[in-house]
Amino acid sequence: MELKNIITAEIDGKGVDLHTPIIEKCSINFYTFDDDKGKEVFWHSSSHILGNALVNIFGVKLVNGPAIEEGFYYDVDSPLPISSTDFIKIEKEFNRIVRENHKFEKITKTKEELLEMYKENPCKTYFIEKNVKDETSIYKNKDFYDMCLGPHIRSTGAVRAVKLLKTSSVYFLNDSTKASLQRIYGISFPSKDLLKEYVARIEKAKEMDHRKIGKEMDLFFFHKYSPGSCFWLPEGAHIYNKLVEFLRVEYRKRGFSEVITPNIFSIDLWKESGHYQNYKDNIYMIEKEDFALKPMNCPGHCLMFRSKERSFKELPIRLADFGVLHRNEVSGALTGLTRVRRFQQDDAHIFCMRSQLQVEITNCLQFVDYVYRVFKFRYEILLSTRPEHYLGELEEWEEAENALKSAINLVGRPYKINEGDGAFYGPKIDIILYDALGRKSQCATIQLDFQLPQRFNLKYTGPDGALHTPVIVHRAILGSLERLIGIVIENFGKKLPFWLTPRQIALISVFADEYTAKIRDLLYDFEVKIIDDKGLTLNKKIRNAEVAGYRLVCVVGKNEEEKDEINVRFGTGKQNMKLNEFVSFVKNLCFEKGDLDEMEIDMNKCKINE
Amino acid sequence: MELKNIITAEIDGKGVDLHTPIIEKCSINFYTFDDDKGKEVFWHSSSHILGNALVNIFGVKLVNGPAIEEGFYYDVDSPLPISSTDFIKIEKEFNRIVRENHKFEKITKTKEELLEMYKENPCKTYFIEKNVKDETSIYKNKDFYDMCLGPHIRSTGAVRAVKLLKTSSVYFLNDSTKASLQRIYGISFPSKDLLKEYVARIEKAKEMDHRKIGKEMDLFFFHKYSPGSCFWLPEGAHIYNKLVEFLRVEYRKRGFSEVITPNIFSIDLWKESGHYQNYKDNIYMIEKEDFALKPMNCPGHCLMFRSKERSFKELPIRLADFGVLHRNEVSGALTGLTRVRRFQQDDAHIFCMRSQLQVEITNCLQFVDYVYRVFKFRYEILLSTRPEHYLGELEEWEEAENALKSAINLVGRPYKINEGDGAFYGPKIDIILYDALGRKSQCATIQLDFQLPQRFNLKYTGPDGALHTPVIVHRAILGSLERLIGIVIENFGKKLPFWLTPRQIALISVFADEYTAKIRDLLYDFEVKIIDDKGLTLNKKIRNAEVAGYRLVCVVGKNEEEKDEINVRFGTGKQNMKLNEFVSFVKNLCFEKGDLDEMEIDMNKCKINE
Repeated sequence: MELKNIITAEIDGKGVDLHTPIIEKCSINFYTFDDDKGKEVFWHSSSHILGNALVNIFGVKLVNGPAIEEGFYYDVDSPLPISSTDFIKIEKEFNRIVRENHKFEKITKTKEELLEMYKENPCKTYFIEKNVKDETSIYKNKDFYDMCLGPHIRSTGAVRAVKLLKTSSVYFLNDSTKASLQRIYGISFPSKDLLKEYVARIEKAKEMDHRKIGKEMDLFFFHKYSPGSCFWLPEGAHIYNKLVEFLRVEYRKRGFSEVITPNIFSIDLWKESGHYQNYKDNIYMIEKEDFALKPMNCPGHCLMFRSKERSFKELPIRLADFGVLHRNEVSGALTGLTRVRRFQQDDAHIFCMRSQLQVEITNCLQFVDYVYRVFKFRYEILLSTRPEHYLGELEEWEEAENALKSAINLVGRPYKINEGDGAFYGPKIDIILYDALGRKSQCATIQLDFQLPQRFNLKYTGPDGALHTPVIVHRAILGSLERLIGIVIENFGKKLPFWLTPRQIALISVFADEYTAKIRDLLYDFEVKIIDDKGLTLNKKIRNAEVAGYRLVCVVGKNEEEKDEINVRFGTGKQNMKLNEFVSFVKNLCFEKGDLDEMEIDMNKCKINE
Repeated sequence: MELKNIITAEIDGKGVDLHTPIIEKCSINFYTFDDDKGKEVFWHSSSHILGNALVNIFGVKLVNGPAIEEGFYYDVDSPLPISSTDFIKIEKEFNRIVRENHKFEKITKTKEELLEMYKENPCKTYFIEKNVKDETSIYKNKDFYDMCLGPHIRSTGAVRAVKLLKTSSVYFLNDSTKASLQRIYGISFPSKDLLKEYVARIEKAKEMDHRKIGKEMDLFFFHKYSPGSCFWLPEGAHIYNKLVEFLRVEYRKRGFSEVITPNIFSIDLWKESGHYQNYKDNIYMIEKEDFALKPMNCPGHCLMFRSKERSFKELPIRLADFGVLHRNEVSGALTGLTRVRRFQQDDAHIFCMRSQLQVEITNCLQFVDYVYRVFKFRYEILLSTRPEHYLGELEEWEEAENALKSAINLVGRPYKINEGDGAFYGPKIDIILYDALGRKSQCATIQLDFQLPQRFNLKYTGPDGALHTPVIVHRAILGSLERLIGIVIENFGKKLPFWLTPRQIALISVFADEYTAKIRDLLYDFEVKIIDDKGLTLNKKIRNAEVAGYRLVCVVGKNEEEKDEINVRFGTGKQNMKLNEFVSFVKNLCFEKGDLDEMEIDMNKCKINE
């Protein structure tokens, strides 16, 4: 760590300003912009500078300016509307404050002093009344001050690059009866290069936006007649079905049994499961609340378990269900495939004995690992443990948490613990997936549940002849298929994995239509399109097919026909192959899901001209 | 036709009693019990005899006694409850009247005379007031009479066998504010042998009842928490998914593109499609009628068609959808899989030009033929033509009806015409399927629709550059998968077709567990169960596996292990096969769906010891 890169520090675990004097023996940690804690302080300080600039230009009243996951914002009560057309002006003022390199100073003020300072600012006054007991701190840089607990960066000069991003309208405390505020988002960096990288990443993300690609590739669309429910066009439905097929093959290997359960259930079921009491706002009610559309599959699976007497010999019972689920998300929250109202999960529930938990969890983790490797997703494991309010016995929880830990250890993966973040009904493992742009999503989940089996009074006869209550493991690998497809698209762009894409092979005929048709028939099991853009040059046709996402673009002319060959293009390479070699090459591509990209790249090396 | 078998006749197309004198030149048709018209007169006459018996025994007031599809019933207002424990007594009286061989006599009565005759019978009085203008007829046999238009059989003696079936409670005119009546169902035949055949058929049907078999084979169940929605257990879901898979293979061959569409739609969609106005009672409304659960897929497919500009070059567009549908059937109408509230169809909509209709319809009919051959279902084709109230141009209808007729002719099938029975939006072809017990079901349907494309303002650019409206063909082959599975089970019983059944092969190990496990692994792609009923004799194990519906029951002992063989049982035969021969035999069984049963029967001949 270079001294100049240090942004903030902790003394005995508490964040402090860098100029804090050390007066006794203590432990100190330093953080740079590479650390989450460094970023947070950096962006929070940038937010003060933004506030300073907004006061100087617009005379706004400041309300609240936190760091967020990427950057910061400031909520202000402004006499004038602020829009993105003002960004250049604001950034200029921001950079002026940076160039003046003001020191951040912490000053303690009494509640009375603060109320006097902010007497013209009702929102801050609300915060002071609500949160300040006797005194608190403000941070000053030159003439500007803002109520704040800190810590901050040493001085404004550390912010070498800033970019304002967008504005939005919000209500104070998210309450539409309260004051309407303007929120200005920005991001800042300790170097211009980091900003450049960020801008490039954002551009790339825009290009990979699944909504854009979904439209361009005719995969899906949304319609006002069913907000939050995706319409999967033929090529999108192809991807959807391929994923289901992929999982079915794994289910067979891994002992999951697929079932099909109803979509609407009497309200009495949701009362028995507890969802009515705890989750009602998200459930679509039917016919004056006689029935409801299922938001999850577990209660239906409990009815299946309960549909006959069960013996320990049948356990574990692993029920998998691709059932359609609906959750009533507010329409403002709906964004493409990321947040939908209608979705299908690769959902399963494992009913087992406690003694079987560790093996089942290990298998689930290996299942996750296998599937994520196919997509080449990096991921990390989070273990969420017993929360403050929990149901069941302490001993039961400890046993379960230990089972989860040793299962994770067995598969040899590192993990982080989210202390106290488990559900009230059991501890859980969340899998955080990273896509090619480093963005995180939570898709897979493995949750223990001691609660539902009791609510449904589920029993099995044990080896001792007595009745016992099983444990339920809720688990999903891909999670929502809708969301996963969104992530896959944003990760791969139009060049989707060969086994998954509806655009595997494009055939371009150059006066060899019959031979081309013959090739298409040979490749009946694959997604083959004969490109037929009349009037375009060959190069333009090839380019179009590549841009459209076809993984293998093949040219078929008289020359190829005579020699029983095909001209294949992939990435920047091209070459002629014997037709039968090409067919077996393609068959191989599809077979080994995990290794396709390598196989494609190594095509010259490993497959051709043997 | 033997004279003694004649039951009724028509003169110039009008039903008459057999003793009607012929007074001028006319055309006469005679009918026996083999004809629907013969059965109807026979059963209606039997209903009179039942009424006669009920009056004699219980002093009931007669209300209404028609023939129905199988047999007849009489609704009566009885001073005493009548139950199945009374059937012996009633049948005895019925047979006494038969033995006395009363002639049926038709007598004309004025409205006044009738009102006087029935003054104690308010229900009949209601009919007289409502339906009789000046006069009508009664039919007399000995002292008994009943108001009736006829015709009837010559005399009661023709009824050689009768069986009462059940009783139920009904309201007069199905109106619960009106009188409560008792309905007694029966069936009768002109010979005792026919009754015996009927009873045997009923027994067989009971044994094949899909609800019974579904329970015994653990295929599915229903639950009060979701009436009319089936819970498909693993082996039932296997059948369900196999059917979908089977159709997907055909869709690929036949140019259908699968899509996935939302399950809930704004009420505005159902208003645009017209379902809200015409079908509201059957639609599940969500959230105070903001949304509704889809009862059919067509409107969603219209939105897909409309989601971008269409050219004639894209047509026909064939969108297939296995989407979950819900229709709010009254709970009294729900019966097993036959009548459900939640179902999935092998639904598709073809958007095409009128000039493409004939080819599309021909292809649909060939598709139906292919699929029904796989199940060995006999079927007949009904063409329903323009109804009195229709939408669109007369010329358009004629063109469409001609297209349908010539399509049927092209596939070389006979058909019946249901004059005027088409939907208001277009003519249609219904396929009536016959199962092994001769029972009819309507599953496949092919409907033309000129109406929906107009409601949704669907357009494509024609070769002339102008905008045109496409025609929609609604078509389903299996219809509701739920119902079709019910029919398949009742047709095949537990011995489901090999490719479809979750119980393909049972392996019974006789001290050869390792070798048995090896065989199971070799047969990974098949549904194999190792039978493990400890403590049973070998014969009992074999018998249990056969009764459970396993199509191939195999015994594996030390003897087989040494010779690399397997002992295979099918029907009444059994024999040893080399293991590799058996594996390729089984692979062949699965491949040719159409020919399995023959292949199984001819197993000795065609596959073994080659």
